[in-house]
Parts: sequence; C-alpha cells; structure tokens
Amino acid sequence: MDIKAKWIAADWGTTHMRAWAIGDNDSVLAYRESNEGMKDLQQNEFEPVLLRLIENWLDDNKVTNVMACGMVGAKQGWVETPYLKVPCVPIDNSQLTIASTKNTHIKVYLVPGVMQHQPADIMRGEETQIAGFINENPNFNGVVCLPGTHAKWVSIKDRHITSFKTYMTGELFGVISNHTLIRHSTSIKGWNQASFEIGIHEGFENPGSIGSDLFSLRSESIVNDLDRDEARSRLSGLLLGLELNGAQSYWKNNNVTLIGSELLSNNYHQGLKILGGESQLFSLEAATLSGLSSAYKELNSESE
Amino acid sequence: MDIKAKWIAADWGTTHMRAWAIGDNDSVLAYRESNEGMKDLQQNEFEPVLLRLIENWLDDNKVTNVMACGMVGAKQGWVETPYLKVPCVPIDNSQLTIASTKNTHIKVYLVPGVMQHQPADIMRGEETQIAGFINENPNFNGVVCLPGTHAKWVSIKDRHITSFKTYMTGELFGVISNHTLIRHSTSIKGWNQASFEIGIHEGFENPGSIGSDLFSLRSESIVNDLDRDEARSRLSGLLLGLELNGAQSYWKNNNVTLIGSELLSNNYHQGLKILGGESQLFSLEAATLSGLSSAYKELNSESE
Repeated sequence: MDIKAKWIAADWGTTHMRAWAIGDNDSVLAYRESNEGMKDLQQNEFEPVLLRLIENWLDDNKVTNVMACGMVGAKQGWVETPYLKVPCVPIDNSQLTIASTKNTHIKVYLVPGVMQHQPADIMRGEETQIAGFINENPNFNGVVCLPGTHAKWVSIKDRHITSFKTYMTGELFGVISNHTLIRHSTSIKGWNQASFEIGIHEGFENPGSIGSDLFSLRSESIVNDLDRDEARSRLSGLLLGLELNGAQSYWKNNNVTLIGSELLSNNYHQGLKILGGESQLFSLEAATLSGLSSAYKELNSESE
Repeated sequence: MDIKAKWIAADWGTTHMRAWAIGDNDSVLAYRESNEGMKDLQQNEFEPVLLRLIENWLDDNKVTNVMACGMVGAKQGWVETPYLKVPCVPIDNSQLTIASTKNTHIKVYLVPGVMQHQPADIMRGEETQIAGFINENPNFNGVVCLPGTHAKWVSIKDRHITSFKTYMTGELFGVISNHTLIRHSTSIKGWNQASFEIGIHEGFENPGSIGSDLFSLRSESIVNDLDRDEARSRLSGLLLGLELNGAQSYWKNNNVTLIGSELLSNNYHQGLKILGGESQLFSLEAATLSGLSSAYKELNSESE
C-alpha cells in the first residue's frame, strides 16, 4: 500500500521509538514502532533509524516535516533542546529545535522538555502529552498525572504548567523486582487484585515502613508460602500507595486526569479509588498526537 | 608459621566467607576471608572452599570442630538448617545442624537462623551476633540494631529474641545507585556530611516523598549541578532517614546498640543522633566470635 504522509509524528523515548504517518485532518495513515530507544543510539544513528521506519511514507517531490518529542532531545540524544522553564505553556513553537539531516526530503523538529528550578525537576515527552490534553480541553484547570517509569504530577492553570513533581515509582518497581532478593518471590506477569489493594493501603498508611514491607514479600514467601502473583501485585500496590501518600496534595480534592498506558493508568485509577480519590483516563496516543499536531500546525501557519 | 586451631569459627554469608582459627581462651590465632559466598557455590563446593581456607590450621591427630553461621545454612546453602521461632534464645545448641564432610579431620556445625511468623520475618547470621552480644551483656533488655544489606531491629528480653523487623535499606541503596538513572548523578565513594544530614531529615520527615526525593537527585544534578558526592551522601541519608521513620518504635525512648561494620554503624549512629536518638557501637567481629564460641563451648561440655 502506498502511503504518503502529510507530516510525521514521532515519540522517541529512552527505550522505544514510535512513529505515525499523519494524513488530512490529523488522520493516522500508518504506525510503526521500534525498540531503538535513545539510550541505545549514538548521535549519528538517529537519522538512519528514523529513515528506516518512515522512508516509505515520504513523497520524493516535497519535504515532509517530522515532529518529534521525548528523550531524543536530551543531552545524550540526537540534538539537545534547551528546557522551557515553568511556569510555561507546555509547547512553545518558537522554541522547537531542528535536527539537521543528510536526507533532504525530511525536516525534523524536536520539542523541548520542561524544567523546574525549585524544587528541581525535569520532563521530556510529557510536555507534549500535556499540550495535547490542553488542546482538547482548553478550559481545564487542575491536575494531570502521567504514570510511567517516572510518573509526573502536574498542576495546570490557564493552559500553563505551573508546577510538577516526578516520582520514580515505575523504575523502582523494575529494579526491585529484577535486581533484589525479592525477584525470587515475585512472578513476571501475574496479578491478584486483593493483594494489590493490601499493598496500596500498606504503602499509603505506613510509608516509612516501605523498606520493611518490601523485605516481608521475601519473608512471607519463605515463612508463609506467599504466592508469586500475590507478591508481585502487593509490590506494585506498595510502591503506588507510597507515591499516593507523597502526592496527596495533588489528588486530594482534585479529580485527576490520568494520561499513560492503559494498564498503568488503570492501576493509578484503582489506587486512587481505594484511597477515596477520583480520576479518569485520557488516551496517551491521542494526547501525544494532538500535542505534536498543534506544533505542526503552528509551524505551518507561520510558513504560509 | 604453624598454627593449629583449637576450633574454627566461620561466618559464611551470601557474598563472603570469613574464618578464624581460635586458640586457648578464645584467642584469635589467624584469620582468612574469601568472596566465595553462598550465592556462588553449589552444594558440593562448600567443603572444598572451606578446606582451602582452613586446611593449614588442622591437626591431623584430632577432629577439629568448625562452628559456622550465616546463609551457609539456607535452602540454597550447604545444608538447610530449620529456623528457630521467636520468642527464642538466639542460639539453641540442641538445634545445631551437622554438615557431613568427606574429610574426617573436621566436624562442621551450622547455626540455624531465626524466623517470625507474624509479621513474617527471617534472619540468618544475625542470631549469632545477637547471641554473642548477650553473652557479653547477660542482663541486657532492650533494642539491638544490626545494620547491613538487610538491617535488623531486634527486641531482646531475658536473653531471648522477642520480635524483630528487617529493612532492606542496604540492598535498596545498592540497586538504586547501580541500576537506576541516579547512577549518572552519584559518585562511587565520596562523602558529604551536610548532604547526608539533609537526606536524613527529608527521608524521616516525608517518607511518602521518597520516590520523588530520589528522582530529584537526578534533577538537581541536571538543573542545579548537584555534586556527585553530595548526591551519594543525600541518597544514603534519604534511605536511612526513611528506615528510621519506620523503625521509630524501636529507637524512640531506647538507647540502641548497633552491631555492624564500623562504617555503616557510624552512619546509623549519626542518623539517630540527628533525629534525637541515642546509640552506641558494639564490635561485629566480637559479637560473631562470642556467639560461635558459646555454641562451641556448650557442645564441648556436652561431649565431655
């Protein structure tokens, strides 16, 4: 099938690269993904990796714009894009960085991340999803949470990011279940809802006991034959409950919008519900594409 | 030098093996160590590893007793020793397990670990240090803390362990500083006392924010050029402060005795002091040797 993209959207993170061929009216014509994330690429490898994924979508008679967000714009990425500083709009089109390419049929724009000085914090990629969410909800004032390896809790007011806070809960879950003695007691995939709920309560109510509650997953498996799926679910609940304790000021008295993978967003929704919090999901892909689309359109309106 | 041991003490943990040749009046005649820990050995490799370390200390005209404690008695170790259950004396000499050997000039006794059913918890090795400490302080009633990969807080009454709680703080420090993005921001060895103290306060006062405080070590290094030694020291303080929050019931209103490596025990002593707690150090080696010595002597008195 011969697909020619009007423009191309790319979400290029630490471990994955996702690309969409976009047609008229922001329709998605095609999608491709790769596990060639930023962390595995040298600077000169970004262009060939990108071309391999999108080559078939290019029209040789014109220059196709590629709008990219994520860690591709980090210091270790393709080109470093200087952070915007809060309070700020999530995407400022006058601040896009162009990644120079040998191929003359593409022009690659990178969306900068956002930083906060006090307390110090950073994001790269999430600003685009926030921009997309705001595009779809221009009058929104409140709290957005983006679950992930490094979950972000973000306050939004008048289309601006006013402050945010990152919790490395996802990364902690990864290293604890893969690199500590707890790996002997947890399953890779299984799930037990009741154990997740126990974990949510424990983590939330006794945050200082986390180091002990984690060890008890191992002890429980040795002393009381704790099931591996139960251990994994309780671990997940413990770490999320801990985060929800720390992030209370964001979600108490706020209906939180969750933008993340469906699986993870559902966990956050459940966790909040167990603790009396309210939330709803917003599609991660829709947020990403709407954010990149707004950057593309403004670019286009300027050049016309 | 021709050293012949009266008996041999061995502390055989997950990652290390330590052996002492003991003479009259519990004098240490020689010491050897190896990094052939339990985790790297198959069942049939324990005897050859032990012999290589202690062979020169054996008298061919008699059988030398080897008193060993630690993970060598775990399921994955040489021979599994069934746990004692709290409340219990730390070492019950009627419960030692003999590891059978091909060599007829040694007789190897393993000290069992201690378990707790509710809440589930386990120790292997620390019971011997606790026994040693109690030997030297027979009237002690109170709290002992054994810092380490898996720190133990232990209540002792009338020479018995009444309850205990494990915090996997040391293991968390290891995986966080080696396997998360924080590794890019921390040094391997450096130290900054002021940063350690900041960490102690943060971890203790806002335990639910740990996932965010950890990420901020990375953000601070990117946004505000946080020094690597400062980041490492703050990480150490954060995790210890978190543990000291959880373990408050053990150390508030108690003068805690710390039994661990000098470096780690000093950190715990400092951390407690910063938060208004009192503690003093007791030598780890003295505790281990006194514990194994008491097991040896009782054995000997029975066989006489």
